[in-house]
Amino acid sequence: MAIPGFHAVVPAGGAGTRLWPLSRAGHPKFLLDLTGSGRTLLQATVDRLLPLTGTGGVLVVTGTRHADAVAGQLPELGAADVLAEPSPRDSMAAIGLAAAVLLERHGEDVVLGSFAADHVIDGTEAFQRTVREGVVAARAGYVVTIGIAATGPSTAFGYVRSGPSLGLDDAPTVTRAAGFTEKPDAVTATAYLATGEYRWNAGMFLVRARVLLDHLATQLPALAAGLQEVAAAWDGPDRADVLDQVWPGLTKIAIDHAIAEPVAAAGGVAVVPGDFTWDDVGDFDSLAQLLAADTLGDEGLVLRIEADGAFVAPGGGRTVSVVGLPDAVVVDTPDAVLVTTRAHAQSVKSAVDGWRARDRTDLL
Amino acid sequence: MAIPGFHAVVPAGGAGTRLWPLSRAGHPKFLLDLTGSGRTLLQATVDRLLPLTGTGGVLVVTGTRHADAVAGQLPELGAADVLAEPSPRDSMAAIGLAAAVLLERHGEDVVLGSFAADHVIDGTEAFQRTVREGVVAARAGYVVTIGIAATGPSTAFGYVRSGPSLGLDDAPTVTRAAGFTEKPDAVTATAYLATGEYRWNAGMFLVRARVLLDHLATQLPALAAGLQEVAAAWDGPDRADVLDQVWPGLTKIAIDHAIAEPVAAAGGVAVVPGDFTWDDVGDFDSLAQLLAADTLGDEGLVLRIEADGAFVAPGGGRTVSVVGLPDAVVVDTPDAVLVTTRAHAQSVKSAVDGWRARDRTDLL
Repeated sequence: MAIPGFHAVVPAGGAGTRLWPLSRAGHPKFLLDLTGSGRTLLQATVDRLLPLTGTGGVLVVTGTRHADAVAGQLPELGAADVLAEPSPRDSMAAIGLAAAVLLERHGEDVVLGSFAADHVIDGTEAFQRTVREGVVAARAGYVVTIGIAATGPSTAFGYVRSGPSLGLDDAPTVTRAAGFTEKPDAVTATAYLATGEYRWNAGMFLVRARVLLDHLATQLPALAAGLQEVAAAWDGPDRADVLDQVWPGLTKIAIDHAIAEPVAAAGGVAVVPGDFTWDDVGDFDSLAQLLAADTLGDEGLVLRIEADGAFVAPGGGRTVSVVGLPDAVVVDTPDAVLVTTRAHAQSVKSAVDGWRARDRTDLL
Repeated sequence: MAIPGFHAVVPAGGAGTRLWPLSRAGHPKFLLDLTGSGRTLLQATVDRLLPLTGTGGVLVVTGTRHADAVAGQLPELGAADVLAEPSPRDSMAAIGLAAAVLLERHGEDVVLGSFAADHVIDGTEAFQRTVREGVVAARAGYVVTIGIAATGPSTAFGYVRSGPSLGLDDAPTVTRAAGFTEKPDAVTATAYLATGEYRWNAGMFLVRARVLLDHLATQLPALAAGLQEVAAAWDGPDRADVLDQVWPGLTKIAIDHAIAEPVAAAGGVAVVPGDFTWDDVGDFDSLAQLLAADTLGDEGLVLRIEADGAFVAPGGGRTVSVVGLPDAVVVDTPDAVLVTTRAHAQSVKSAVDGWRARDRTDLL
């Protein structure tokens, strides 16, 4: 059953360079079926949200470069449900624009939830329960972040610390947020988990559109005014002109820094615990752990000799033979082969930098 | 200046499975330019020999499957200079056939030298000097093997041990061969080198054709008779019929076991020292050491990040990026990608076995 007044915003951006050469600037991570499910990460994200919002309740914000591909993957969305940004201005502009457009279209009661287009979630029922509780807290005026139950002391994610319960009748698990942390080192992460108070900050927010824009007006008034001006023109004849004038001058800032951190310090952020499985599929090590199999693609194309567990994505139609490298990661595409190890998964973006330095922009 | 009566025999066989997927059954090692010189191993072998034999002095023995490719790579050879075997019967049959054909064509004075088609030699002048001295000893009736000055205690090669000088006037460095050894372990190899008496056995022989066939008639009379019968018919109308009848029954044996070892025990083998650089390019580790560069092919297609020294053969036109694997070996071809390490270079043939077991004979 859909939640009345609830709208989902899906920022679809980022090149996913640590998943290169599967993920490319022109064909990024969110457009890929990385789980072998038959649905891309973007499609799976929208599949998960539509039951909560009802038809017409999902708004995707993406770059003009990807707008056609996004619309092509999501025939269930209307033309007005894909907002195309002329250039990337980071997550605050993307989500803030969506909030302002939703206010223009649907009025003051809108509660929005923001969900990245390129994360993987397992456990639909738990996810929906979490969102429903979070929306209750959002209606009460909070910026609500979803805190994921950590399965281990990850150093790849930031954490959110839970404070005392908010005591909301219909949202008993929601607490005040005591604060956010950057990605910790392993010792710190272990200490966090020992307290029982820390959860992974998955970057998913629930908030009344009006509350979000009011916070933004306080923190970054010029950005708030610019987004308001763009949103007012969005569904009229002047959109292109206003975008031309206003968009390039908007402040580039992540919503975490613009809103979540300062508002948390003032007691305005809440945490709703999410006990579903979540992964941001940040790199090939993460992807290999996520998949049940060691092959992404046709297992018949892969031969492993003394290389059990080597992760192979045979995407070029060629066979891939791995001999004596159980820790290997091999990604084959029609124009680029990547060979690395799980331990070096974070360094893959340096390969992208390397090809850029050689002006091989066709590969990026 | 050519050596009168000297003929070179080049057995061109073997699939080079440890160099798969560069080397294939249908396109084996000897047909490849593995050094990036612009000449294949076969072509470089013939280039090296023609100045010693003169025009028409090189005979290549290969399988029917490769006869056209061999002839295509060697336009300087006449049609009669490529002997096509209906099926592989190992090196004794190949070299024995050539010896018998040379006797039929050129008479009793023929001295032949046998040189594999898929080895790499550097130092033409030293090579030619060695062959000239070896031919002198061959004329004196010896089976002469070229003993290569070892550059280290290799466990990949067999060794030949030098005995006392033969005291030949025009071949002062030639000694009696005290015996052959199999590939030793590292400790044994080191002990060999410490004596100063051991050299690598490169499998290159110089011998009078008549002497070779006489030894063969003593050791393996049926094989000698069969080869004689085939050779007598070779240049006449009955070649195909005689091959059909005789060839399948010929004993499969290496010349080392058939001739070199028993004759050495009887004092009939000599060693001529070769102080040129020689390599059998047995696997990718060997190839990587041989090449001055870490790339076989277009360096512009290869990116190494924390992977200095990784050996890459980008043969598919695609880019290859190696991140965090300095010991890697990556071979890219249009239908097969191989990823291994230098330490596992000898295990590459197990990948060939693996694809054979999956009936992917198209890859072999």
